[in-house]
Amino acid sequence: MREVSPFEVESKELDYEKLIRQFGTQPISSLKKNLIPDHKIFRLGIAFSHRDFDKFMQAIKQGKKVAIVSGFQPSSGMHFGHLMTFQTNLFFQKKYGVEVFIPISDDETYVTRKVETQEQALENAKKIAAQIIALGFKKRLTKMFIDSQYTKIYNFAFKLSRGYTISLIKDAYGFTDSINPGLMFYPCVQAAHLLMPQLDEFGGPKHTLVLIGIDQDVYVRIARDIAEKFGFIRPGALHLKFLPGLKGGKMSGSKPETCIYLDDKIEEVERKILNAFTGGQGNLEDQRKYGGNPNICVVFKYLATFFLNEKEMTEHERNCKSGKLMCGECKQMLINKLKKFLREFQKKVKKAEEKIDKFLLG
Amino acid sequence: MREVSPFEVESKELDYEKLIRQFGTQPISSLKKNLIPDHKIFRLGIAFSHRDFDKFMQAIKQGKKVAIVSGFQPSSGMHFGHLMTFQTNLFFQKKYGVEVFIPISDDETYVTRKVETQEQALENAKKIAAQIIALGFKKRLTKMFIDSQYTKIYNFAFKLSRGYTISLIKDAYGFTDSINPGLMFYPCVQAAHLLMPQLDEFGGPKHTLVLIGIDQDVYVRIARDIAEKFGFIRPGALHLKFLPGLKGGKMSGSKPETCIYLDDKIEEVERKILNAFTGGQGNLEDQRKYGGNPNICVVFKYLATFFLNEKEMTEHERNCKSGKLMCGECKQMLINKLKKFLREFQKKVKKAEEKIDKFLLG
Repeated sequence: MREVSPFEVESKELDYEKLIRQFGTQPISSLKKNLIPDHKIFRLGIAFSHRDFDKFMQAIKQGKKVAIVSGFQPSSGMHFGHLMTFQTNLFFQKKYGVEVFIPISDDETYVTRKVETQEQALENAKKIAAQIIALGFKKRLTKMFIDSQYTKIYNFAFKLSRGYTISLIKDAYGFTDSINPGLMFYPCVQAAHLLMPQLDEFGGPKHTLVLIGIDQDVYVRIARDIAEKFGFIRPGALHLKFLPGLKGGKMSGSKPETCIYLDDKIEEVERKILNAFTGGQGNLEDQRKYGGNPNICVVFKYLATFFLNEKEMTEHERNCKSGKLMCGECKQMLINKLKKFLREFQKKVKKAEEKIDKFLLG
Repeated sequence: MREVSPFEVESKELDYEKLIRQFGTQPISSLKKNLIPDHKIFRLGIAFSHRDFDKFMQAIKQGKKVAIVSGFQPSSGMHFGHLMTFQTNLFFQKKYGVEVFIPISDDETYVTRKVETQEQALENAKKIAAQIIALGFKKRLTKMFIDSQYTKIYNFAFKLSRGYTISLIKDAYGFTDSINPGLMFYPCVQAAHLLMPQLDEFGGPKHTLVLIGIDQDVYVRIARDIAEKFGFIRPGALHLKFLPGLKGGKMSGSKPETCIYLDDKIEEVERKILNAFTGGQGNLEDQRKYGGNPNICVVFKYLATFFLNEKEMTEHERNCKSGKLMCGECKQMLINKLKKFLREFQKKVKKAEEKIDKFLLG
């Protein structure tokens, strides 16, 4: 593992170490080396914190059944921040045969008032489903469903609801009496998602893992709180750093201007990248003279995360810093790679749209 | 309609008129005569109050589609208080071809902690379903379902949830932050039950009626509040007086000692009636001398409600008051009728048990 990756620098900006202390999680760096998968997300320090990830990996090494849960709230489309998470899910599925549960929570989209109607939320959910299928998940090892279509999940949510009080939900989610009761109940649905791989029909209690941003850790924590009460193993969590948005900061579906979406038009992407925040100097002369700063450059981070292997990344970084590489060239490189990726991916989505019904549970 | 029926006297004891004022409902007595169905429940004043029952009856007279909703919370078995309600539902179905929706809320039984497990609640629900079928509801005109089996009802509950706030639910139901979120959400499920006959799949907006005790009026009221917001006609309510329990007071599933259950063992019924509260004198001599008081006698009320026509009832009442009829004879009469009814009914339930799956939605 590199001592200081571009992501480590970012981590200092956001002080991920402080977050680890604040949330009471464990740093990935304290894991035994043989429990750390050989994947870029770990080598670059993007996966930086966890709960019980060691137990999850030990279970894999012992040949036990495990599962990953990775939900999607379909208020916006899928962007490259999601892509990073789902590519990691896919890595676990391909490398270790891990079963991946993907609940698409159109109910959450509706009760949080992100859309006007349930029909709209469902439509978004189906779009997401096609995109996830197009990423290459294996049907045999994937349990994907849309809440409003797989309504038996609510029986499990009701079961778990008896483990919570309104007080606890309010504390964890910051809710007040002005919200609607659907939203107040939703945390039970979320807990049902996290614990469902342990239901008898899915093979009973097992180590499970949730890939999330650390800001969502509280949802895992309250599910962990009640897991044992209902005879389940407490789900673990793997916390990924945020992918930077086009202007720096976090790529977030609630701020479309920060996102590259997987269904962006090809020309759109070109415009977005040309306007993206970089670590370059103000003009070509200074860039040649002083070089750029890849550590703060979102263009570099997208290249490094999605398109370059680590040898290429190191070389690219060196060329940027030394003033050999101009921002224009670098952006064009990303644009070309993005265009190619999106063109191929969007073709796969078209095909996947026909498979949705077969793929989804319920 | 008799000026003073045994039930009118009871009504003075419980001051049903005060309840009407307190709840802001309409007395049945103020309805135009041609809108009052020719049924004992109205003639005896058992149906005493309403909301929009006139609109419901007008719609029937105009040949419009209407529906009744009559839910069942299966924490206890079905007793004769329920029987009175369901026989009235059945009257509307037989006489006017009214479609009857019967949601059996095993989820409510579970979230209110009336049973330990969801499995137990479901088992109770199935027992109730068989009993309701055995009463003679026509499959073509009956939409009966168990919440945990017909889980798509929850999509509708989520839809309606956006019409409520936690504050409103707390005020209406008396809930606090110490309850579980499943229970906090349940009022949305209840509203979904009340409004579901108006869903497109069941023929769209129509006048609907709910038969309830006036103590449950608040649940109808909050569903009425939001009905228009979602494009529905406000459901109406018909309020029935409480059937007295074996010791006087209300027959209530939460107090088993007040109930005759439809699955009571035949010998059990005999014991229960022999110990029931009557309006008789302390001894035979006084009974002959002063006569009994049928107005406060539960044995008389059971006979009058379920087994005697009005001519028989009047004669029976006269014989009691004049001291011709002894409590022992009267009890024996009721025991014989109950035994016959239960023996036949329980045979029908056995047969109905095989039909449950065909009968239930979902």
